Amino acid sequence: MAGNTFGKLFTLTTFGESHGTAIGGVIDGCPPGLALCEADLQVDLDRRKPGTSRYTTARREADEVKILSGVFEGRTTGTSIGVLIENTDQRSKDYSDIKDIFRPGHADYTYQQKYGLRDYRGGGRSSARETAIRVAGGAIAKKYLRDSLGIEITGYLSQLGPIELEPKDLSLTNTNAFFCADGDKLEALDQYMRELKKSGDSIGAKVSVVARHVPVGLGEPVFDRLDADIAHAMMGINAVKGVEIGDGFAVVGQKGSEHRDAMTPRGFASNRAGGVLGGISSGQDVVVHLALKPTSSISVPGASVDVHGQAAEVVTKGRHDPCVGIRAVPIAEAMLALVLMDHYLRHRGQNAGVMSSTPVLPGNLSE
Amino acid sequence: MAGNTFGKLFTLTTFGESHGTAIGGVIDGCPPGLALCEADLQVDLDRRKPGTSRYTTARREADEVKILSGVFEGRTTGTSIGVLIENTDQRSKDYSDIKDIFRPGHADYTYQQKYGLRDYRGGGRSSARETAIRVAGGAIAKKYLRDSLGIEITGYLSQLGPIELEPKDLSLTNTNAFFCADGDKLEALDQYMRELKKSGDSIGAKVSVVARHVPVGLGEPVFDRLDADIAHAMMGINAVKGVEIGDGFAVVGQKGSEHRDAMTPRGFASNRAGGVLGGISSGQDVVVHLALKPTSSISVPGASVDVHGQAAEVVTKGRHDPCVGIRAVPIAEAMLALVLMDHYLRHRGQNAGVMSSTPVLPGNLSE
Amino acid sequence: MAGNTFGKLFTLTTFGESHGTAIGGVIDGCPPGLALCEADLQVDLDRRKPGTSRYTTARREADEVKILSGVFEGRTTGTSIGVLIENTDQRSKDYSDIKDIFRPGHADYTYQQKYGLRDYRGGGRSSARETAIRVAGGAIAKKYLRDSLGIEITGYLSQLGPIELEPKDLSLTNTNAFFCADGDKLEALDQYMRELKKSGDSIGAKVSVVARHVPVGLGEPVFDRLDADIAHAMMGINAVKGVEIGDGFAVVGQKGSEHRDAMTPRGFASNRAGGVLGGISSGQDVVVHLALKPTSSISVPGASVDVHGQAAEVVTKGRHDPCVGIRAVPIAEAMLALVLMDHYLRHRGQNAGVMSSTPVLPGNLSE
Amino acid sequence: MAGNTFGKLFTLTTFGESHGTAIGGVIDGCPPGLALCEADLQVDLDRRKPGTSRYTTARREADEVKILSGVFEGRTTGTSIGVLIENTDQRSKDYSDIKDIFRPGHADYTYQQKYGLRDYRGGGRSSARETAIRVAGGAIAKKYLRDSLGIEITGYLSQLGPIELEPKDLSLTNTNAFFCADGDKLEALDQYMRELKKSGDSIGAKVSVVARHVPVGLGEPVFDRLDADIAHAMMGINAVKGVEIGDGFAVVGQKGSEHRDAMTPRGFASNRAGGVLGGISSGQDVVVHLALKPTSSISVPGASVDVHGQAAEVVTKGRHDPCVGIRAVPIAEAMLALVLMDHYLRHRGQNAGVMSSTPVLPGNLSE
Repeated sequence: MAGNTFGKLFTLTTFGESHGTAIGGVIDGCPPGLALCEADLQVDLDRRKPGTSRYTTARREADEVKILSGVFEGRTTGTSIGVLIENTDQRSKDYSDIKDIFRPGHADYTYQQKYGLRDYRGGGRSSARETAIRVAGGAIAKKYLRDSLGIEITGYLSQLGPIELEPKDLSLTNTNAFFCADGDKLEALDQYMRELKKSGDSIGAKVSVVARHVPVGLGEPVFDRLDADIAHAMMGINAVKGVEIGDGFAVVGQKGSEHRDAMTPRGFASNRAGGVLGGISSGQDVVVHLALKPTSSISVPGASVDVHGQAAEVVTKGRHDPCVGIRAVPIAEAMLALVLMDHYLRHRGQNAGVMSSTPVLPGNLSE
Repeated sequence: MAGNTFGKLFTLTTFGESHGTAIGGVIDGCPPGLALCEADLQVDLDRRKPGTSRYTTARREADEVKILSGVFEGRTTGTSIGVLIENTDQRSKDYSDIKDIFRPGHADYTYQQKYGLRDYRGGGRSSARETAIRVAGGAIAKKYLRDSLGIEITGYLSQLGPIELEPKDLSLTNTNAFFCADGDKLEALDQYMRELKKSGDSIGAKVSVVARHVPVGLGEPVFDRLDADIAHAMMGINAVKGVEIGDGFAVVGQKGSEHRDAMTPRGFASNRAGGVLGGISSGQDVVVHLALKPTSSISVPGASVDVHGQAAEVVTKGRHDPCVGIRAVPIAEAMLALVLMDHYLRHRGQNAGVMSSTPVLPGNLSE
Repeated sequence: MAGNTFGKLFTLTTFGESHGTAIGGVIDGCPPGLALCEADLQVDLDRRKPGTSRYTTARREADEVKILSGVFEGRTTGTSIGVLIENTDQRSKDYSDIKDIFRPGHADYTYQQKYGLRDYRGGGRSSARETAIRVAGGAIAKKYLRDSLGIEITGYLSQLGPIELEPKDLSLTNTNAFFCADGDKLEALDQYMRELKKSGDSIGAKVSVVARHVPVGLGEPVFDRLDADIAHAMMGINAVKGVEIGDGFAVVGQKGSEHRDAMTPRGFASNRAGGVLGGISSGQDVVVHLALKPTSSISVPGASVDVHGQAAEVVTKGRHDPCVGIRAVPIAEAMLALVLMDHYLRHRGQNAGVMSSTPVLPGNLSE
Repeated sequence: MAGNTFGKLFTLTTFGESHGTAIGGVIDGCPPGLALCEADLQVDLDRRKPGTSRYTTARREADEVKILSGVFEGRTTGTSIGVLIENTDQRSKDYSDIKDIFRPGHADYTYQQKYGLRDYRGGGRSSARETAIRVAGGAIAKKYLRDSLGIEITGYLSQLGPIELEPKDLSLTNTNAFFCADGDKLEALDQYMRELKKSGDSIGAKVSVVARHVPVGLGEPVFDRLDADIAHAMMGINAVKGVEIGDGFAVVGQKGSEHRDAMTPRGFASNRAGGVLGGISSGQDVVVHLALKPTSSISVPGASVDVHGQAAEVVTKGRHDPCVGIRAVPIAEAMLALVLMDHYLRHRGQNAGVMSSTPVLPGNLSE
């Protein structure tokens, strides 16, 4: 209830602080028999891990994940899976001077007020370091969804500050440090980031995730709609301030005759809905967009107060990403995988018999 | 787990279809001793109910709510509160001709695929009629939050199709059928809706909700952040396709030095964060925006398929709102109240001792 | 979280007080397509309802249940099922004289201390009247389990005060007012109860429930074992003070070589385990026993205190069962059905593929 | 939902197999500010750990616990607490010969059927080794309950096979290997166990736990009663087949006039209720008894089948406790602590204002 568990049937419970001994988690509810090894998790952890390019924090973490339980002779057993990543590159002394000051735009103030004390080293639990375990858990969900249902989940950077990026070629996303699928814009991104770093400032970003081959029928009506749970998952990622499904905020200006996706015997003729109708997956691609704020950990001085309510100026040292949105791409993929996996098991629990029926429509027209 | 319960400590469980005997729900976890009567719920139900203006569906429902339990001698007892609203104006025959056809943009197709059968009368459980019970449950939360903590929750229409609306005077929202706080635009809204109705089409909308005087400290780090749970609540409202907290998608183009809200001894100097930092309420106003799609229940013919996968043309008769976004205003208020109430109880459970501490900052500068 | 919801995938949420307008509940997670009508629920409600024999309270309630949602054209739709029973024979004036006194052995004192106020009419929410809705919800689970899996759940009275009763013929249980399967003891029971009523006192009882044809594999290791959830369900029935699975407390004196049920190619050779091994159903009959205390609502005067802590003598008037254990039989059946149903759906969610495999053993040898 | 999480507001999620790399868990919802270090957990772990006397398994595990997160500068921070214990003395080869045979009375068969595969080394997840993490989590709850509320939780062995043990002096329990509070019986216990070991058999036991100074008001009416949640917790301990609250099964033969605990201005005159009335703590001592079956891991040969359903004889080698009930004492204490802690937070969440009120009665008369 203190919010460190995600999901209902397929759950991920996490622990760990930025500068503690280790971070870790428990994945519960994974079906038995899934072929799984540490390398399956490491792939996505390596995509998220810091210190891999000049655009991310200089902190270097191997982020080497260990599976401690729940796998026997290369297969999941149906019991809970413990995962652990040791912290190796903590430099807590970087943070001693912000012990008594609240960084504006940070969780410092709200944690202090909520709990009466806080682990100020690197933001403690509020650090995005915690998301490594989400990526580990999401990798298990991803593998199951791919192996069993053929679902493919791909994220990409769709905007960085003023630079809009098209998903021209999704196969590009793993070939550059920006998770960019728009090859023509790589040069512009590089130049923008160089100048940004020089200025000591940070920038917002937009990230998109697409899940293809999602079966019809996932999601529960009313409160736990598939899109509602996706929104919960995505808004729960550090720095996210907005979530859209399909056309998102553009629907405000659309007419009904324009918005509804026509259905044809060969499939849906468009995908403004983003793959969800009435809270339930439609067989169209599930399309999600998120807005990530610029990090407040910048070297540009800012006005703030200290723990006694006195005015103070803050300059964040330490090692930080100038655009936290970039590394959010694998995190967003992981969260979407967790939601789909959970809803798949929930659906199977309530509707096992129905599950096997062939959908009336074959899915997207484009496939 | 089938998703008809909302919340963890303060929960709302609902049931009921558009054209069934009745809709109802159970509110569990309400603290004892709250002064409560049916009129407290009816106020918001009347704001949401259909048939009150020419801009909404012609269906006429008294939406008279009965409290069946949990209240004794005018006060809540701490036990579960049962609420019931009878359906009185069902015209099921309106729907018999869409029994075997999927309306494009509707839940018809996804329900049929998920469950193998569906109550097609008025959309059954997928109808927004179900939200009346959310409004009833939200009214209880609202009353507790207002009476005990001084929290005020106000929603308003912030855009209707092309017409953007400013929150110039929130006291106006209950004086017009649009929940509009921008008096100068009422004429334009009226004219737009007349023409829309004539065309048989529908239009999208944007709704905003603000909660003032929220104490610092509500929300759990990591997955159940206050903003994540708000996103879950709002994206779970029928027709919602996007949710923003504070500056929302505008943060994509912002720099860190611009985005972070400066903290001063007299309070926050701005509110780009929308009242949430690190997933926890900051004492600033909580500000939420939602995008609602245009309803697909329109008389403009649309291409679709029938239950056998054959091509079919659909014209929706029945009685429908040309802009479902309008009546979403009290629903969005209710959902925000449910989230804040739940998180208040969760916070009190874990942090009772801390709760009483005075916040370092007095809240918004503007107050 | 305030505890009025039972189950995780198949849930029952209830509301209602002894002397309120109505009692009711919501069943969520019922698979679609189950043939269901009100008569299916009424059968068990009639078995539990008061006023049917001289051995139960004189309160007369029709306990006529209405299904308000979730069923369309005779089949469940997969959406939440609302049920309602109106209270018709309340005599609240019977209770006004115990408004300020705590009946010893009752929930009066603990409710008052927990909530600061209480609905004293007939015990309010602490009345066993609430269990009618459990029986209604359990009837749905029972029907699904019987129709889909062939599971049969039968309860019987196994002891009333000093009179031990053997399950000689389970078909007898519905032919007498005691749910007694031991025909030779009916006369003794009748005589015992006559004398008891005369004395104004009450008596404890033991109730047993058996589920036959339970598939192997239901239940989760560690915390949510099948037997743990059964214990939770049974100890949650009013007046229950003890729960046993299989041999129960007799195992204390058993040796390992004696206790373990031998496995043979034709099935288990005995059933000391009561159908559960390692928290998971074994295919043997699931056997549960519960101990129910004598009700404290008796006309024998008792020492107590009033709300001011002053000494007071209590004589309970009103209408009460001299042996609440008797009517607990259908309630215990309902609770066992709810647990099995929930675990069946949970198992199906996590292990759909495994489910279809043929068990190595055919179940009980005796079948 | 796969059942590896216990509790609702104060939760413990565990992972780990008998012969895996490590076992561990996450404690979520612990209030901030609690003074806590590893030694606080180690005390109870040392009481439970194997290899400490001739009456327990010869497996030697240091059971050295590490706290990985959630504690900063000696105090809990309110974030999730990760704990880890490495397995050091695994001898997996002991088990290779039971790989394809089901030990009668074990979880071997049910795990295989449920999941389609199993980690057969030492019982995998079904091993009581997993309970070490329950003890670690329970130690945190215990410390909070003691430090903040003065609650004392003490367990003791109340019967071993035929030898009944009285709680003559609870301070004795930590001075002997039996957790026995009946000094006169130590010799008899020792002799019984020597003979039992010689025979290669095992024996059942009864364990009791008492919580003193529990405040009035903990527990939720209806399903999540305090006693129902205690039953869930206790029946979830390996080998438990029965649970009693207060007088337990003895109530079957009691009359109402005899059972109800008289209330006097100085407190309750007796404690047949075991500290719970209407599912809510009464301020009396909470008294719980559990029956533990004899382990089936014995060297006496037993009839069974192999994975192909063929008859087989089983002799368990490996290292096992001849009476698993003994080491269950600290586990039962831990589980009671977890339940009380969870319900304390739940109560505080819903009833913070009420909490501070002075109870009408001072508690047990005897105090």
